[in-house]
Amino acid sequence: MSEAQFDGKQLYALCERLYPIARSLTGPGVRATLQELARTLVELAPDAPALETVEIASGETVFDWTVPDEWVAREAWIRGPDGRKRARFSDHSLHLLGYSEPVHTTMPLAQLQSHLFSMPDRPDWIPYRTSYYRRTWGFCLTDRERASLPDGDYEVYVDADLGPGSLTYGELVLPGESDREILVWTHVCHPSLANDNLSGMSVALAVAAAWARRNRRHTLRFVFAPGTIGAIAWLARHPQLRARIAHALVMSNLGDAGPFHYKQSRDGTADVDRVFAHLFANESSLGEATILPFEPYGYDERQFNSPGIGIAAGCLTRTPHGLYPQYHTSGDDLSFISGTALVQACALVMQATRMLDGDRSYRNLEPYGEPQLGKRGLYDTTGGENERRLRQLATLWVLNQSDGSRSLIDIAIRARMPFAMIEEAANALLAGGLLADITPSDARSGSPDKGSR
Amino acid sequence: MSEAQFDGKQLYALCERLYPIARSLTGPGVRATLQELARTLVELAPDAPALETVEIASGETVFDWTVPDEWVAREAWIRGPDGRKRARFSDHSLHLLGYSEPVHTTMPLAQLQSHLFSMPDRPDWIPYRTSYYRRTWGFCLTDRERASLPDGDYEVYVDADLGPGSLTYGELVLPGESDREILVWTHVCHPSLANDNLSGMSVALAVAAAWARRNRRHTLRFVFAPGTIGAIAWLARHPQLRARIAHALVMSNLGDAGPFHYKQSRDGTADVDRVFAHLFANESSLGEATILPFEPYGYDERQFNSPGIGIAAGCLTRTPHGLYPQYHTSGDDLSFISGTALVQACALVMQATRMLDGDRSYRNLEPYGEPQLGKRGLYDTTGGENERRLRQLATLWVLNQSDGSRSLIDIAIRARMPFAMIEEAANALLAGGLLADITPSDARSGSPDKGSR
Amino acid sequence: MSEAQFDGKQLYALCERLYPIARSLTGPGVRATLQELARTLVELAPDAPALETVEIASGETVFDWTVPDEWVAREAWIRGPDGRKRARFSDHSLHLLGYSEPVHTTMPLAQLQSHLFSMPDRPDWIPYRTSYYRRTWGFCLTDRERASLPDGDYEVYVDADLGPGSLTYGELVLPGESDREILVWTHVCHPSLANDNLSGMSVALAVAAAWARRNRRHTLRFVFAPGTIGAIAWLARHPQLRARIAHALVMSNLGDAGPFHYKQSRDGTADVDRVFAHLFANESSLGEATILPFEPYGYDERQFNSPGIGIAAGCLTRTPHGLYPQYHTSGDDLSFISGTALVQACALVMQATRMLDGDRSYRNLEPYGEPQLGKRGLYDTTGGENERRLRQLATLWVLNQSDGSRSLIDIAIRARMPFAMIEEAANALLAGGLLADITPSDARSGSPDKGSR
Repeated sequence: MSEAQFDGKQLYALCERLYPIARSLTGPGVRATLQELARTLVELAPDAPALETVEIASGETVFDWTVPDEWVAREAWIRGPDGRKRARFSDHSLHLLGYSEPVHTTMPLAQLQSHLFSMPDRPDWIPYRTSYYRRTWGFCLTDRERASLPDGDYEVYVDADLGPGSLTYGELVLPGESDREILVWTHVCHPSLANDNLSGMSVALAVAAAWARRNRRHTLRFVFAPGTIGAIAWLARHPQLRARIAHALVMSNLGDAGPFHYKQSRDGTADVDRVFAHLFANESSLGEATILPFEPYGYDERQFNSPGIGIAAGCLTRTPHGLYPQYHTSGDDLSFISGTALVQACALVMQATRMLDGDRSYRNLEPYGEPQLGKRGLYDTTGGENERRLRQLATLWVLNQSDGSRSLIDIAIRARMPFAMIEEAANALLAGGLLADITPSDARSGSPDKGSR
Repeated sequence: MSEAQFDGKQLYALCERLYPIARSLTGPGVRATLQELARTLVELAPDAPALETVEIASGETVFDWTVPDEWVAREAWIRGPDGRKRARFSDHSLHLLGYSEPVHTTMPLAQLQSHLFSMPDRPDWIPYRTSYYRRTWGFCLTDRERASLPDGDYEVYVDADLGPGSLTYGELVLPGESDREILVWTHVCHPSLANDNLSGMSVALAVAAAWARRNRRHTLRFVFAPGTIGAIAWLARHPQLRARIAHALVMSNLGDAGPFHYKQSRDGTADVDRVFAHLFANESSLGEATILPFEPYGYDERQFNSPGIGIAAGCLTRTPHGLYPQYHTSGDDLSFISGTALVQACALVMQATRMLDGDRSYRNLEPYGEPQLGKRGLYDTTGGENERRLRQLATLWVLNQSDGSRSLIDIAIRARMPFAMIEEAANALLAGGLLADITPSDARSGSPDKGSR
Repeated sequence: MSEAQFDGKQLYALCERLYPIARSLTGPGVRATLQELARTLVELAPDAPALETVEIASGETVFDWTVPDEWVAREAWIRGPDGRKRARFSDHSLHLLGYSEPVHTTMPLAQLQSHLFSMPDRPDWIPYRTSYYRRTWGFCLTDRERASLPDGDYEVYVDADLGPGSLTYGELVLPGESDREILVWTHVCHPSLANDNLSGMSVALAVAAAWARRNRRHTLRFVFAPGTIGAIAWLARHPQLRARIAHALVMSNLGDAGPFHYKQSRDGTADVDRVFAHLFANESSLGEATILPFEPYGYDERQFNSPGIGIAAGCLTRTPHGLYPQYHTSGDDLSFISGTALVQACALVMQATRMLDGDRSYRNLEPYGEPQLGKRGLYDTTGGENERRLRQLATLWVLNQSDGSRSLIDIAIRARMPFAMIEEAANALLAGGLLADITPSDARSGSPDKGSR
């Protein structure tokens, strides 16, 4: 896989800039994040369309849900009898329970305890907690700090607004020859957590920048949105787009040192499922990459794969959520991710999306036995013997399988050969007049809902 | 699995009462057995309908067969030169070859030998032998006794009638909301053999009693019949019932200490096959329970799975027939079975039939993304964290899969979760207005013959 | 498997007679080979129809190809400064590059080198090389000899004609009750190479002779043709035959000591695929026999399995081409093959073709439960207990599965029993009036192209 087009230092630096921003489901942190992403995109791909920011007003009904109030947190802390401010929001965005309502009061430590969250088994990490749909307030802190709190009365201070505003997401559309779309989706609602999900944002942005420089058959759409409600709102507002999405991939947790995990879409038979299975089985550089069966728990693939939506979305991670101890704690900081890991993820996603975009169906125009390749100069004699043998095998596979029912992805999977080699053989045969391109112009493979647009 | 509703001592005591009765394909032994079963049912479930006894006259044509003459054996023995009566029927019902014709004669030992059956490799056990369709007589005895027979003339005495009469079977019907049926079938034609098949009879009776105390969607039918000819006669006489049988299970050999074996129906794809595969894979208490592929040899699943009948019947045993040395010998006595084994079998059959009876299909009424469970009080917050997580996962599986094409059994299998947990989640969602029940009222899943009634 | 009908000495002697003949794509060597095969067939099966020789004129268009000029090589050598003739065609047919154009000239060794072929890693073997479609000349020799060539000028002599003539193949048709065909195909274009492919020719001939002595439901066709162009020419000239081919098998490399390998047809689901899978799984005498997935590289199964032809052909070998070091070298001589290996191959092909020819579909005429076998004398009581049990099981399988959708091959596979035992059971049931033969008279199973003839 070609990792050369991606720059690990650049990607890591982006994560460093995003890390301190206090994101939540809504509010200024998401907007600042999207601004930083948009600014970086201009750097990476000056000619790319802009990453647009979209606002949806609180109170809007989106399917079964209502867009929540906006949360604007400015500062928060607790101050004990020793006068020291602790669990200060401005020190670490995890200190404040997400969606805490404003409060300024005093209470004894015993009473405060029910508003404090820590992890006894991980005494040096601050846990990540939210209360989106039940109004309350709270503080998260290390268990070591909590244990050392002196007895006495505590001043509790949360300077925040929680009221009508809007929910914000970012969207980048790279138009292609067709309006069939490849959708790449990643969540932006987590505060200072590096792997979950600065990694997903930076990989999505770098892949978008790489695609901005390429020809595209499909339209590629990259969405940076808050989890659950963001996806539900987007889906509710774009009924016409839903029908155009041919392939969909949700991404997160891509910066740690673990092997890749791809979670299948609902039926496990979409093109995106087959592409990742093929890559995991044939790209030895991916090591112990693992295919996981679908389950209805996880990231926003949950919404895409719901029965009424029917978009077969896979989900790519390295170590899956919940399976590393740093998950949803301050341990998931910048030291937990690396530029190398991000770059390898970019290359994998690039390769997968290139397969999805480049898939074609051909019909062999000389299907009676093998055509005589030699007289057309298609009997390759350059390169080393093994390479030549592989190229010839790719040619024979394309000829043998191109009966109208199989696409290049099908052929690569069956031949267990790299897609690029199959694609190259097909291109040579097409140029040699031996194939006709019969790719349906508006076929919607990979999605159970085959309805008209 | 809940074994609490079954009483091992009670079941074992029933087997003790049935053991001495000299059963055969027809005759008073079968009638006495059915009487004892009927009496015990009244004890176990006073409000249950009666276990009815049905008689079919000898000579009646049933498909390709004819109901045979009735055999009434009263006494039999051989008496040698020492004056001692041996192989006395009244001592052990296995001593007399089943369906022996009456005889009273004298012959030298050498001539008698061709009428004697023993097992040289199991010198202390009496073998079980019959000659239903070729008229002869014979005696079964231990090889040790046979070897000790003194030379000389033997008086041979078989006091039996073999002539027109009837074939007897027992039937218990528990009507349900629907006339679609779950059929539980077990054979009653073996004499004093405990595992084969007092175990099947006692488990079927206990399960029937348990179902008599429950609401039933399906009609449950329990049949206690002689092997082969009993099933053929029942099928020939009930063409209209055949079409109503949605699920069928044959049972035997359920009292020994071996692990469960479930033999699949003809195509291995019936609901009953899937239910047992699910239970065997997910109920760790079942240990080394094994699924066996269909083969056309065995118990009366042979008749149900024949091409003209097309009822997909599975067969549940512990150690399968023929695979334990005591099989079809006097070694299969009351010491070979235990109340504990019977109770575990009852609990397994109960759980399987509850899945078959309780299967429903639902349609998710808020299928666009996930519905907001919190606002409906469906976001479960009680119980331990792991239990809560499992309940939530069950809820998400039901919502995700309820697109009209999948039933609760399908969902439990896919989720690898206990059916009861899936069913509970579905009930809560139904109560919360998120599901519509779309179970077809007269669907005949699980049977290849989908013809009208 | 019965190997008794084949004579290893006879087969090996045939190979000895064929070995020295200088075969190529066209020319007198192929004709002499076919003559020898025809003569041997008369010996093996005096009443068999003749093995006919067919000529196709150079220049004829066959699909995308043109039948090439005929090559007639008489003598060739190189003579160095020491006056010794080396790499003499009359010493070994591999010495001359196949399809060398005539030449008589002198050149220094340095210049000659580009026309010489040897194997540095196998210094004692002459490689096999051809240049069918690019006009040149060349010599093949052992690397040891090449290294010892004295410096100086070499006289180069190739006495050959390369011009219009014809391509030759042999064909033997054994008519059957039906005009549906079983096609056995083997290549004849290789010079003095024993395993590749005197083995294929001799096995095909012996199997043909064996079939000439048997009743045949199918018409059996054996073709001995040059590789690639031979198959393409045959297919192009027989459009009407293509539709009649129900089963097809390509054979080569059958004389070495390695285990059998069967390469599946394009979709891997043809009857011939299922038959070999069944035999490999159930015939313990075959040892480590292996099923290989289809790939579009290999022998003439490539042409049959092309999308426009659609004949599902398998390919049987022992060690597959290219996987033994002697492949395409003078090391593949008569010492590399054995009569024992050839006979075992004959027996395997015979058994497979007998299954393909003998497959029938029946309908159980007493499908309601089991018919009463005893009253029809079908309840087998002869033979040892185990054999009796197996015969009874075969009978029950045939009765159970004969619902009109399954053939004897299906049943043998499902029962994991020898086809002959299933066939015997079916014959007895047919004779007993319990089965009706519903084999479609012109069904074309095993081929994806089900078009009318």
